[in-house]
Amino acid sequence: MLKVPEHQVAGHQALGGHLGPLIDDSGRFYKPLQGDERGSKEMSFYTSFSSNTRVPEHIRRFFPVFHGTQLVEASDGSGRKPHLVLEDVTSGQFKPCVMDIKIGSRTWYSESSEDYIQRCLKKDMETSSLSLGFRISGLQVYGNKESEVWKPERKVVQKLDADEVRLVLKRFVSSDPSPDLESNPDCCYASSVYGGSTGILAQLLELKAWFEDQTTYHFNSCSVLMLYEKKPLLPKKGGSSAAEVKLIDFAHVTEGKGVIDHNFLGGLCSFIKFISEILTNPDEQSPRTCSQYSDKNGGATENGAAESK
Amino acid sequence: MLKVPEHQVAGHQALGGHLGPLIDDSGRFYKPLQGDERGSKEMSFYTSFSSNTRVPEHIRRFFPVFHGTQLVEASDGSGRKPHLVLEDVTSGQFKPCVMDIKIGSRTWYSESSEDYIQRCLKKDMETSSLSLGFRISGLQVYGNKESEVWKPERKVVQKLDADEVRLVLKRFVSSDPSPDLESNPDCCYASSVYGGSTGILAQLLELKAWFEDQTTYHFNSCSVLMLYEKKPLLPKKGGSSAAEVKLIDFAHVTEGKGVIDHNFLGGLCSFIKFISEILTNPDEQSPRTCSQYSDKNGGATENGAAESK
Repeated sequence: MLKVPEHQVAGHQALGGHLGPLIDDSGRFYKPLQGDERGSKEMSFYTSFSSNTRVPEHIRRFFPVFHGTQLVEASDGSGRKPHLVLEDVTSGQFKPCVMDIKIGSRTWYSESSEDYIQRCLKKDMETSSLSLGFRISGLQVYGNKESEVWKPERKVVQKLDADEVRLVLKRFVSSDPSPDLESNPDCCYASSVYGGSTGILAQLLELKAWFEDQTTYHFNSCSVLMLYEKKPLLPKKGGSSAAEVKLIDFAHVTEGKGVIDHNFLGGLCSFIKFISEILTNPDEQSPRTCSQYSDKNGGATENGAAESK
Repeated sequence: MLKVPEHQVAGHQALGGHLGPLIDDSGRFYKPLQGDERGSKEMSFYTSFSSNTRVPEHIRRFFPVFHGTQLVEASDGSGRKPHLVLEDVTSGQFKPCVMDIKIGSRTWYSESSEDYIQRCLKKDMETSSLSLGFRISGLQVYGNKESEVWKPERKVVQKLDADEVRLVLKRFVSSDPSPDLESNPDCCYASSVYGGSTGILAQLLELKAWFEDQTTYHFNSCSVLMLYEKKPLLPKKGGSSAAEVKLIDFAHVTEGKGVIDHNFLGGLCSFIKFISEILTNPDEQSPRTCSQYSDKNGGATENGAAESK
């Protein structure tokens, strides 16, 4: 029984009878194969990547597991259509906090049509892509209260400037994701989600090292997904917040032809700088509300961010 | 007494009565201040950079020393004009091998005029900038015979593809810089010029680490200059080839505003990958002619590249 995914923050959505991805209860994500070149490109990528023995195992985990393609009833009622069958990365999570960041100051590539280049160029200049080397495509953050969720307008988050992006990245790891721009986010989860030996920053640095070397694929217009589950009152044994980084959206991947993906790598390094600044500037955190939510066995200390000062 | 520099490989040139840079015998390089915004931008950069205490000393050495501005007789006979007074980086060298590499897949920036953006974009697409993240703007390589020098057409080197750039980078460190595309360059100087703890690669990696962190300047349309002096029969005591990396051309530097220069960094990483591949693929070198030229006290072994296999 397929249903509309609850935690999608960017991309085409099936809600309201449109064509979009679906999920099932076994943890699979069904992405309709776009009719034009994009669908075949994305399938080619997954097929090539799955069988590429030169991709190290510690890098492979950053990509959704690919289960092939399958004909399923499309979400727009247009009958059975081919879908990519992928891992549903938020499967089993009750309150997944998710952010989709499209990496690269340029979303077009030389093989694109003149019209596509001009449209992308315009969007890259209107959004933060050109200035920051990435743009936030969408996000959702749960609060600690049962019903609280912050899911800002995609059109707004794409165009944030550097200071606003910093604030959103702090709010993403705070106990209260309140959209009130005046409030100072407490960054309670910064050390357990962004920091630590298995946190987001460590994972991004692993990806970066691979991008400094790999010359097989150019990940045009591809996104980094950051996700972790908000469990304020249920600190887990064993430590980490189980925060994860995934790469998604491969409809515009092209061959690297022996050259590294300098566009993706540059944008990734810029994003890494934003994350690491949050971890190295603890004086900008306000620890007053952190202790009750800190993950006692996690990256944060018993007093949350307070003791990292 | 000012004269036309002999070893300039890119940029405006004073030869034939044009407006271009001049040098003197004391090791200074006089660059005419371009009348438009570019001149004032370049001067602003040198002034800001000279007094910026946040630039580490080991990074400062990658920039030409700045001695202020001076009114000198312009090379085009138009009278006394203001010039930037800089360090002449090839001063005192008899056979400097020089390569100018313009870094970045994008040479324009958001503050540029629409017309400038379109012109740069066209050139970035026509040259290797878009595909490789950099383009070679010019080079000269001396051979071991007295009169031999290879100084290919700038218009040609800008448009080389990845394989051709690899070949040029090999030829730059070979005993015979013959432009015969069929010949296999011997890479005799690869380990002493590109390799070693003070070679080109080590210097580029230092620059890279700084670019991962610095958010003060965006070096749009700026070049990395690689230089070393060819002294085949005079191996120096103490080791290295004294190969140097310099950053030049700051007429389009803009404020970083708290964001790293992801465009420059991405291109620099791509260039680094090309250089490191030459060092890690010794099997593509042909060591047969190397021993007589190897730097006995330098990065290379007594048999040159042969023993690195």
